[in-house]
Amino acid sequence: VSSEALSEATHRQANLTKPAGSLGLLEKVGIRLAGIAGQCPPPVPEGAVVGVFAGDHGVCAQGVTPWPQEVTVSMLLNMVAGGAAVNVLSRQAGAKVMLTDVGVLGDYPASDGVRDRKVARGTRDLSVEPAMTRDEALRAIAVGIEAADEAVAGGARVLLTGEMGIGNTTASSALISVFTGADVSSVTGRGAGVDSEALARKVAVIERALALHAPDAADPVGVLASVGGLEQGAIAGFILGGAAHKVPVILDGVIACASACVAVALAPEVRGYLIAGHAGTEPGITEALRHLELDALVDLGLRLGEGTGAVLALPMVQASARILGEMATFEDAGIAAG
Amino acid sequence: VSSEALSEATHRQANLTKPAGSLGLLEKVGIRLAGIAGQCPPPVPEGAVVGVFAGDHGVCAQGVTPWPQEVTVSMLLNMVAGGAAVNVLSRQAGAKVMLTDVGVLGDYPASDGVRDRKVARGTRDLSVEPAMTRDEALRAIAVGIEAADEAVAGGARVLLTGEMGIGNTTASSALISVFTGADVSSVTGRGAGVDSEALARKVAVIERALALHAPDAADPVGVLASVGGLEQGAIAGFILGGAAHKVPVILDGVIACASACVAVALAPEVRGYLIAGHAGTEPGITEALRHLELDALVDLGLRLGEGTGAVLALPMVQASARILGEMATFEDAGIAAG
Repeated sequence: VSSEALSEATHRQANLTKPAGSLGLLEKVGIRLAGIAGQCPPPVPEGAVVGVFAGDHGVCAQGVTPWPQEVTVSMLLNMVAGGAAVNVLSRQAGAKVMLTDVGVLGDYPASDGVRDRKVARGTRDLSVEPAMTRDEALRAIAVGIEAADEAVAGGARVLLTGEMGIGNTTASSALISVFTGADVSSVTGRGAGVDSEALARKVAVIERALALHAPDAADPVGVLASVGGLEQGAIAGFILGGAAHKVPVILDGVIACASACVAVALAPEVRGYLIAGHAGTEPGITEALRHLELDALVDLGLRLGEGTGAVLALPMVQASARILGEMATFEDAGIAAG
Repeated sequence: VSSEALSEATHRQANLTKPAGSLGLLEKVGIRLAGIAGQCPPPVPEGAVVGVFAGDHGVCAQGVTPWPQEVTVSMLLNMVAGGAAVNVLSRQAGAKVMLTDVGVLGDYPASDGVRDRKVARGTRDLSVEPAMTRDEALRAIAVGIEAADEAVAGGARVLLTGEMGIGNTTASSALISVFTGADVSSVTGRGAGVDSEALARKVAVIERALALHAPDAADPVGVLASVGGLEQGAIAGFILGGAAHKVPVILDGVIACASACVAVALAPEVRGYLIAGHAGTEPGITEALRHLELDALVDLGLRLGEGTGAVLALPMVQASARILGEMATFEDAGIAAG
């Protein structure tokens, strides 16, 4: 991130024809884009790619979600067919969905619509053993880095994170608890829709897992392997890859936030490349965004994931760059600054 | 609004491939669009026109804003040149800015970029006399209706409200106080940036005006004439016109909310055609949205007006229609609903 471009953009915001600060969060995001691009005004981030990573979770054996694991495959195929929410919203926003199987349990017919990078057939049950080996965790991260490389090579100048995986809010809450230090109960929510009893079970399962593995936040790969998930690893890699290419990465919901905690633990300088798409109904989002020092652009009460919150934020991110590039300054307009 | 289409859309939301309610506010907006269009799925609202109405305010004589009134003309010309925030965001969102002078004080060279519908050279000082005559108020409303007619005749299937007028948050807070019954101090904010001393003065000015005119909410035109503004009248008309054409109207910030209170007081059935673009830093927005029974789509801490908050909400409104039209149902995807 270029401090020169950051400071130039901050100065420019103050001279555009508007009361100082009156574009709120849009101003901050514009400044961040300038820092990332190393120029002010920053280019409008085009060629958006939503990296959707699908995986399964052994912890489903503990009844943490009402949805059967087969739904991961069904939704993957729904995405291939273009019928999922993330597809619809991406068409609206002009973004491309890039779908990767990093760890789906079930079988399905091979398809050009899915990149097969299966590291394992789902994770193991994190409440009784490590979810992954260290090697599997590293391979999941590598899958995400490769996807970012491919997206950027194809012209993407902004990456968005997405996912599909029944049970993946459980692993996400575990990761967020470890990296933020917050209590499990304060970062665990209802996911795609569990009742109060199941929520209590989910909290207990995560607490048991943390007691069992005693994960150490100073060893991010170890944390990911013990209580994370394959798609969380891949998203962390996708973020690392985007930042390495100096491309902003828009986070979706709680799974993205958990993955970003992993990425930032591995490489703190990644933080400057992140933009928070959606605020949470999932309580873990709030805690993770505080840890990541990010304010979310969108707050529509979404709790779907897939990348939907990130895609809805994309036009705002693009708008924030355009503001710096196209608005008149007070001098241009012949107005004395107020 | 068609209750049949509303109920069909509500049913369809529950059958799309997502946990029930997981698209939050987007689901509610989609249902509203179906009701307005009288069909489910509703068409994606295209051909967006931002009706920007400019006017001046005699109450500026009371020091309610740090900006000189000449800025209204300067910003109008900035909008003609395409350099204001609303222009930039509209280009991003594919919306057209339709600029109307309904009551600007100053002179400027005639331009194809401004529709000259000047009802008066600004309002009178509402703290010492009625801001407008009843006839002027009615003519301002008619200007807005005509603009909506023209936009819809040109193909607009969604209207957005915008405005420019130094001092116009003062008149807006006065209108909101009358129509919601809330205390002046609880619906008056810093506008485009006044300090605490000036805020106290602004509250006192509005309280004096309400004591002087004792406006009666049951006579909306009388309220508008005594403590409103020309652009508020025009926006109220723009809303009435949009609703008459069965076109959704996306509200911007506090000036739009005040104008919507006028429109709804004149014709309560207009309520079903409204979509709230932006939540408030201006406290009057919160109170007005409660009165209008609306939740805002965007909350970025904007306090600029012009229509910026409405334009940023446009892609979300379009997305909400597209979700109903393009997402697969559980049956399509072969998934048992959870």
